[in-house]
Amino acid sequence: MTDLLPSWRDTATRAAILDFVDAVTDSDGPHFVPAGDRVAVFDNDGTLWTEKPFVTQLAYLLEQWKAQVAADPSLADTQPYRAAATGDLAWLGTAVDKHYAGDDADLGLLIKAVAGATAGTSVEDYQAAVSAFYRDARHLTLQTSYAHTVYQPMVELIRLLDSHDFRTYIVSGGERDFMRPMAEEYYGIPVQRVIGTALGLEYDADANVVRYSPSLDFFDDGGEKPVRIWARTGKRPILAAGNSNGDVPMLRYAQGSPASLALLVHHDDDAGRDVAYDKGAEDALAAADTHRFTVISVRDDWETVFPAEG
Amino acid sequence: MTDLLPSWRDTATRAAILDFVDAVTDSDGPHFVPAGDRVAVFDNDGTLWTEKPFVTQLAYLLEQWKAQVAADPSLADTQPYRAAATGDLAWLGTAVDKHYAGDDADLGLLIKAVAGATAGTSVEDYQAAVSAFYRDARHLTLQTSYAHTVYQPMVELIRLLDSHDFRTYIVSGGERDFMRPMAEEYYGIPVQRVIGTALGLEYDADANVVRYSPSLDFFDDGGEKPVRIWARTGKRPILAAGNSNGDVPMLRYAQGSPASLALLVHHDDDAGRDVAYDKGAEDALAAADTHRFTVISVRDDWETVFPAEG
Repeated sequence: MTDLLPSWRDTATRAAILDFVDAVTDSDGPHFVPAGDRVAVFDNDGTLWTEKPFVTQLAYLLEQWKAQVAADPSLADTQPYRAAATGDLAWLGTAVDKHYAGDDADLGLLIKAVAGATAGTSVEDYQAAVSAFYRDARHLTLQTSYAHTVYQPMVELIRLLDSHDFRTYIVSGGERDFMRPMAEEYYGIPVQRVIGTALGLEYDADANVVRYSPSLDFFDDGGEKPVRIWARTGKRPILAAGNSNGDVPMLRYAQGSPASLALLVHHDDDAGRDVAYDKGAEDALAAADTHRFTVISVRDDWETVFPAEG
Repeated sequence: MTDLLPSWRDTATRAAILDFVDAVTDSDGPHFVPAGDRVAVFDNDGTLWTEKPFVTQLAYLLEQWKAQVAADPSLADTQPYRAAATGDLAWLGTAVDKHYAGDDADLGLLIKAVAGATAGTSVEDYQAAVSAFYRDARHLTLQTSYAHTVYQPMVELIRLLDSHDFRTYIVSGGERDFMRPMAEEYYGIPVQRVIGTALGLEYDADANVVRYSPSLDFFDDGGEKPVRIWARTGKRPILAAGNSNGDVPMLRYAQGSPASLALLVHHDDDAGRDVAYDKGAEDALAAADTHRFTVISVRDDWETVFPAEG
């Protein structure tokens, strides 16, 4: 089994992962879990790929909003279109900060613009547009294709679980259909196992297509994650991995299983291989102590961070 | 492949099913569909098991409502609790008839009572209660266990599709978590592939469980079926099977695939093996002509209707 995690250093974290997989797959052992119940859930942004300088979906949306402003300049009177058109992204960070401080007015504008970028589009057309983005776009700071912005050790962990009959799911605050093409291509997680924030959908009987509505269905973060895990999988997971405050309920939910592993990726690398930050993870790091999450130190546990350029 | 549909008669319908499976699995043929895209969706009530004299979930709910009235007699002042307590079920039929006539007041009471039967219950406790019902209850008119109220030819069709690398899903107006235990046990369809009407859910962080809220999330019928198919599977199905008006959008949605099969079960048996009825299927039967659905005649296409008692 050792060969399956080549990008991991030989640390206690790696041993804890391998021990857990051994324990739940040992049919003679006390912690055995039948294959059908081996559900593993992964946050995406900051857990499976980098979320710095900002989440990839925002890079995509900025291009969409810029194009919308080009078509209708009056949009630039309001946010976040103005930010997209002028490249002054400070407003975006403020909107999120305000949200965590309890003021959702700017977040409301943001959500409206997120839904507005796809409203009326068929799901097939959106998948094609998103796939083209993944094919052509380059990451702002890493200057690589997005395929090279994934955390290689985590992809190896997904492969390890696959090879032991786990069903791996993405459970992310990111928008579900934006993640589907990359989850399949970059992680080998099929589209039906991607759970995320959901835009409203409507069936257009005349055209016989499903289209996005101008509304949000739900934001998949915090306590919504366990809810959506149950709705989709009908199981309580036995393994959960996250990196931020919004992942704590999902990690705790997994810990309610008789045998479980709760993994928290800590962005503590000081060698410039990965951006180091605790912002947005303060509660999660505190909860890691209280609830004995297994903390993955980027600095100490990962020999390699990103995949080698092909 | 012939042996896989032993309860079917040697008819054009059976040939159409076998030809379709041949065509989409022939990697050298013009209609080949890769395994990952072989998604098949099945309505449940009236398609995979009998929905007469009424849907099984109602049999379960009547017991729940009766117990609620026993605990709080004042509930019997309102419907549907009075109907449950007195055994006068006419009101229930009227509520549904009124709904189809555009008056949803009684349906609102019904939905409130459906959600009220589980509000505050953890998903695990509900699964245990539902599983006990399936183990112990007997069907009102067939006088068998519910395991023997499934349509044996349709179960064989699911097995045929399984053996050709389809992913089969339930897509039903029935409540999702009520169906999960029986879908797995009776059809071999795992819980993560059950799509249905969804009760609201909430994460209770203190108890670390997911519980039902007193609200309905969505009613999975009509145009909502294509929407929920996309949300869950990320695919347009290539095979859909239903039996009533609410299945037409799902059947049409499947027909938007380059190769597809839309199956409509017609309850036309006049030999007393199955209840014969067209009520609630009028539009679907008309659409079958217009859109060339493949109609499954219970009378002509099925040699056996229900599984033999074990």
